[in-house]
Amino acid sequence: MESQLNLFYGLSFLIVALAFAFAVYLYLWVKKQKTVNGKIQEVSQLIKEGANTFMRREYIVLAKFAAVAAVVILILLPSPIWQGSPVDNISMALAYIAGTVLSAVAGKIGILVATLSNARTAEAAQKGIKPAFLIGFRGGAVMGLLVVGFSLLGVAAVLLATGDSSILLGFSFGASSLALFAKAGGGIFTKTADVSADLTGKVELGIPEDDPRNPAVIADNVGDNVGDVAGMGADLFDSNVAAMASALVIAQSLSGTGFSNVSMVFCYAILGLFASIIGIATARVGKKGPTSALNSSTYVTTAVFLVLTALSNLVFEGFSWRIWGAAAVGLLVGVIIGITTDYFTDDSKSPVKKVAKASGSGPAFTVLSGISYGFISALPAMVGIAISALVAYKLCEPMGDGYAIFGISMAAVGMLSIVGMIISNDAYGPIVDNARGLAEMGGLGEETIRTADELDSAGNTVKAVTKGFSISAAGLTVISLLGAFMSEANDALVAAGKAVISGFDIMNPTVFFGILIGASIPAVFSAMLILGVDKNAQRMVAEIHRQFSEIAGLREGKVKPEYDKCIDIATSGAIHELIPAGLMTIVATLIVGFIGGPSAIGGFLLGNIVSGLLIALFMSNAGGLWDNCKKYIEAGAEGGKNSKAHKAAVIGDTVGDPFKDTAGPSINTQITVVSLVASLTSSLFVWFSIFH
Amino acid sequence: MESQLNLFYGLSFLIVALAFAFAVYLYLWVKKQKTVNGKIQEVSQLIKEGANTFMRREYIVLAKFAAVAAVVILILLPSPIWQGSPVDNISMALAYIAGTVLSAVAGKIGILVATLSNARTAEAAQKGIKPAFLIGFRGGAVMGLLVVGFSLLGVAAVLLATGDSSILLGFSFGASSLALFAKAGGGIFTKTADVSADLTGKVELGIPEDDPRNPAVIADNVGDNVGDVAGMGADLFDSNVAAMASALVIAQSLSGTGFSNVSMVFCYAILGLFASIIGIATARVGKKGPTSALNSSTYVTTAVFLVLTALSNLVFEGFSWRIWGAAAVGLLVGVIIGITTDYFTDDSKSPVKKVAKASGSGPAFTVLSGISYGFISALPAMVGIAISALVAYKLCEPMGDGYAIFGISMAAVGMLSIVGMIISNDAYGPIVDNARGLAEMGGLGEETIRTADELDSAGNTVKAVTKGFSISAAGLTVISLLGAFMSEANDALVAAGKAVISGFDIMNPTVFFGILIGASIPAVFSAMLILGVDKNAQRMVAEIHRQFSEIAGLREGKVKPEYDKCIDIATSGAIHELIPAGLMTIVATLIVGFIGGPSAIGGFLLGNIVSGLLIALFMSNAGGLWDNCKKYIEAGAEGGKNSKAHKAAVIGDTVGDPFKDTAGPSINTQITVVSLVASLTSSLFVWFSIFH
Repeated sequence: MESQLNLFYGLSFLIVALAFAFAVYLYLWVKKQKTVNGKIQEVSQLIKEGANTFMRREYIVLAKFAAVAAVVILILLPSPIWQGSPVDNISMALAYIAGTVLSAVAGKIGILVATLSNARTAEAAQKGIKPAFLIGFRGGAVMGLLVVGFSLLGVAAVLLATGDSSILLGFSFGASSLALFAKAGGGIFTKTADVSADLTGKVELGIPEDDPRNPAVIADNVGDNVGDVAGMGADLFDSNVAAMASALVIAQSLSGTGFSNVSMVFCYAILGLFASIIGIATARVGKKGPTSALNSSTYVTTAVFLVLTALSNLVFEGFSWRIWGAAAVGLLVGVIIGITTDYFTDDSKSPVKKVAKASGSGPAFTVLSGISYGFISALPAMVGIAISALVAYKLCEPMGDGYAIFGISMAAVGMLSIVGMIISNDAYGPIVDNARGLAEMGGLGEETIRTADELDSAGNTVKAVTKGFSISAAGLTVISLLGAFMSEANDALVAAGKAVISGFDIMNPTVFFGILIGASIPAVFSAMLILGVDKNAQRMVAEIHRQFSEIAGLREGKVKPEYDKCIDIATSGAIHELIPAGLMTIVATLIVGFIGGPSAIGGFLLGNIVSGLLIALFMSNAGGLWDNCKKYIEAGAEGGKNSKAHKAAVIGDTVGDPFKDTAGPSINTQITVVSLVASLTSSLFVWFSIFH
Repeated sequence: MESQLNLFYGLSFLIVALAFAFAVYLYLWVKKQKTVNGKIQEVSQLIKEGANTFMRREYIVLAKFAAVAAVVILILLPSPIWQGSPVDNISMALAYIAGTVLSAVAGKIGILVATLSNARTAEAAQKGIKPAFLIGFRGGAVMGLLVVGFSLLGVAAVLLATGDSSILLGFSFGASSLALFAKAGGGIFTKTADVSADLTGKVELGIPEDDPRNPAVIADNVGDNVGDVAGMGADLFDSNVAAMASALVIAQSLSGTGFSNVSMVFCYAILGLFASIIGIATARVGKKGPTSALNSSTYVTTAVFLVLTALSNLVFEGFSWRIWGAAAVGLLVGVIIGITTDYFTDDSKSPVKKVAKASGSGPAFTVLSGISYGFISALPAMVGIAISALVAYKLCEPMGDGYAIFGISMAAVGMLSIVGMIISNDAYGPIVDNARGLAEMGGLGEETIRTADELDSAGNTVKAVTKGFSISAAGLTVISLLGAFMSEANDALVAAGKAVISGFDIMNPTVFFGILIGASIPAVFSAMLILGVDKNAQRMVAEIHRQFSEIAGLREGKVKPEYDKCIDIATSGAIHELIPAGLMTIVATLIVGFIGGPSAIGGFLLGNIVSGLLIALFMSNAGGLWDNCKKYIEAGAEGGKNSKAHKAAVIGDTVGDPFKDTAGPSINTQITVVSLVASLTSSLFVWFSIFH
């Protein structure tokens, strides 16, 4: 059976090579598209420089953090270097560094392509929706292919080199710790700029979105790139790696079928990437417009994946239909969650309409009704995750000890199999959002702006759906990480000559202690991020006011604003705020572990997952709802632009901005990081803890 | 040892008699105080009539619900009538009815006294703060004494009559199901009126709070009574009964020490009531003002309770210091949680100041920063509950099987021992709030209004603290109800010849399934209540607009508004909305039970408790913070009244109103009801469930 596994290693590297080749092709294709408008080139250049400046400063901070973390890992993990084998510690530290580097490189290239595509998309929009869509989508697809390619490459290389799936957890931790800070930092940057630009521009001055007179307008466009392209890419890189890593840790611990379970994980990852390539290659705008184009590519990818994995079951020895079923359930539930998310954020459905109506009575009602629908919207996804975990577990339980949890981890792998497609759709959003801004600032005319608006609106709709999807995928992944944590903790307990854990009983007070504290963490974490945005935005608003009062001729458009001052405020603020929240979650995990040992950590992870999912779904969906509510009113409902309802909706949208683009999507990563920290440090808690 | 228990039954009835006698004395004392101002008498009469109308209509609906529930209980609980003994079913149904009736009577009398005290407090405020404080406080104390007296009376009578603690769960369910609807209905009423009055009066028309020209002003004052007096009384009646019931269920299941554990529960309840009587009798305003008077009475009560229970340990055979320790830890943690809650809502501390500062940048920042501090404020209370549960458990674990959970239930009993004092402080709030309104409407002059304002402000501060306290107490109670549920489920499993449950393992997918769904319920529940307020307030705002545009001379104060129309809107809306949310939680419990059996329900209760505590703490504290932030600005900070910051703070306060007075405090009751439903119906799930 080892030959079978080797076959899949080979195929993994082959499909990664294919994905990279395709990404290069798409990159060159995008680059080949013309851009002739000098004004657009100039602004696009400003956006690119702003993004690069931020990324450089962010990566310097993250490199320092990663260096410290790598040294700590070298000394302490998987077990203190003076106790275990130093080779393991060196491998773990190297795997950690590899995880951070691949994540950073993917983010960097994503930014490169996105800032290349935005101007070209804007100019292509003059010719119509089809060519513009293709540039925006293909620019995003480069990011999608790279992220999935890097994750498969990294996981396969680490496992092939070390043969030890625990080392994979180090790689995965590298990916997540970077993602945690990239998501938080990018999220704070983007919303600082967005909120400030909207409040001063739209609300106070009454100038349109993306008006070049607004000093924050370039920062706002930079933010789309660093938040939604780099941050989101790092986030999904992390989820994807974590899902594969936890599935592989559990697969290696299973007895009976040799390597076939490990092979199966790789096979599904390979076929997922292949299906995404097909989906990307076939994406075109038809008569139904861009939203439908993005959705139908997702459905194509899903169908291709399900058919090919079913075929693989017929071909390969030791592959199980039960596990296929678990993966299929995960994927289908993911798609269904996406659709229900759409219900709560789509402006043709009741929730958005009701919030728009409530806005007529004032902003308090916009906020209250949006929060309410946000809370309700969490229910279907929570039920979906609960059902897919239950079904995957029950399907695989008869296969033997440990298979039930393996089933859940394969549901996560299944859900994430189409992640290449998801990222492509997601990265499309900021590119066309930028393109819309460039069309406005480049003076390309009403018609072109309308085309860009249509592309942008599709990006927003799809974004809400993919967010629900990625939160749910993180949910399933961390459930299987809970299994991985238990298996790691038990290895350490056996080594320490202590009794193993068979589960985490909620009636055990140390477990319960962990649950209550774990449940508080996502709330505190998101509060810290939101307060970061709140603080920075106040500073940026003050700067914008200063520019308008001090720079003569700015209001009339005769003089350019000092764009770089705003970019600098967003950058410094984000860099300053990104570490504390992330560090708090890691430190809290360690404190609970050293107080209550593995049982408390089991509870802590559970509490963290449950409240993390709830808060993330609430925030993402409420934010998406308010955004679309504002657009719905701007399109003429409830009195249209500048009505009382519109003013209230703008306030709702401002509240929703950090919900949906800073805190909500960062929670994914937060729960993954905490789960990985717990697994990695489990042996420490076995040795040192007050209660046990 | 049975003689010991009989002694405590006797003492229970004696202390209840004493409490009732004291309540009657206070009632007569309040009634004796003079009221001479015709205008105030007239308005006070309107408030009283409005409250009575609402209570009558609400109780008619609740009576129908209770009748249906009693029939269902008669047929199905504790086990289907065709299987078990019909006497048990009859007892259970009667106990249920007794629970609902006592809760309703306490609410009714509370309203009676509160509407009697408000006018007298207002007029006494002309003479100074001391006499006014005393009337307000003693009016509230009548409610406090009655609620605690009724709970001890009911619990002792039911247990003495049936000897079966399971029947107590029926009594407790009666109390909670009424509380659930009373809290939801009263909460919707009060915030519909408050929000509408503020938005139209303060924001749109720029007239002061409690201005008699505002058509919603009477409804607003009625709301304080039906929401904060009747609703809150029902809530704490429910918590108190549930804490005692679950402690007694567990005490009866303990082996070894005969009746002494049961005796101990009664002894602590008796001493708690006695300590509250002392605290109430000694309350006076000193130099430090009303807030300090309320707080120091609470400290007196706490100290008296701790000393007397320690003495009881020396006197009575079989009483344990470990259990005393558990009760003491619960009580002390409750007080500490109250103090930390105060930090987040007090305007001399950093959170309120920062939110006020953020308000200068617009309402979106008020909302965002308030939500953030609300989330952070949940952490200390969650940690406090976690620690008190852990310590109580570890303290009592060495005493033998089952004692650990008994320890947690006694921590809840300890925390709730001073509930008589807590209710007195809480009911004081709406009385002085009403008094302030009456002083304004009766034209008693600036000086008197200032005195009333000071009394009112103390009420608001103490209210935030008591809310943190009562949420935490509910948290500990429902943890012990989880223990009660397991013991009930195991009885049913033994009767069915199935294997008993030793715990709820979070790695078990049916448990996990339950956890995820249970965690969603408080979010959906609170959303439904908030949407109820949102919808009704929109209707009431429309009605107020209509009156101002159609009634000539209203704006100038020449003609009276049609107060009754607004009262009617609040009443009909609340009656209409109060059933669905409550029913949803009960039905969800049953669905999860019939799908996943006892294991899923164990998880469901856990998820419900954890997310319920988090959301309740978040909402109550954020709401309190916004309220005080508005007052802080009105007192002159950040530009004072009518500044930009003030407008933003008013919007924040409006968002916070249903958070803190409708949804937040209703969640207490929601988690208790769900826990009781689960315990009561456990045998049904053992017999009928899809998975197990």
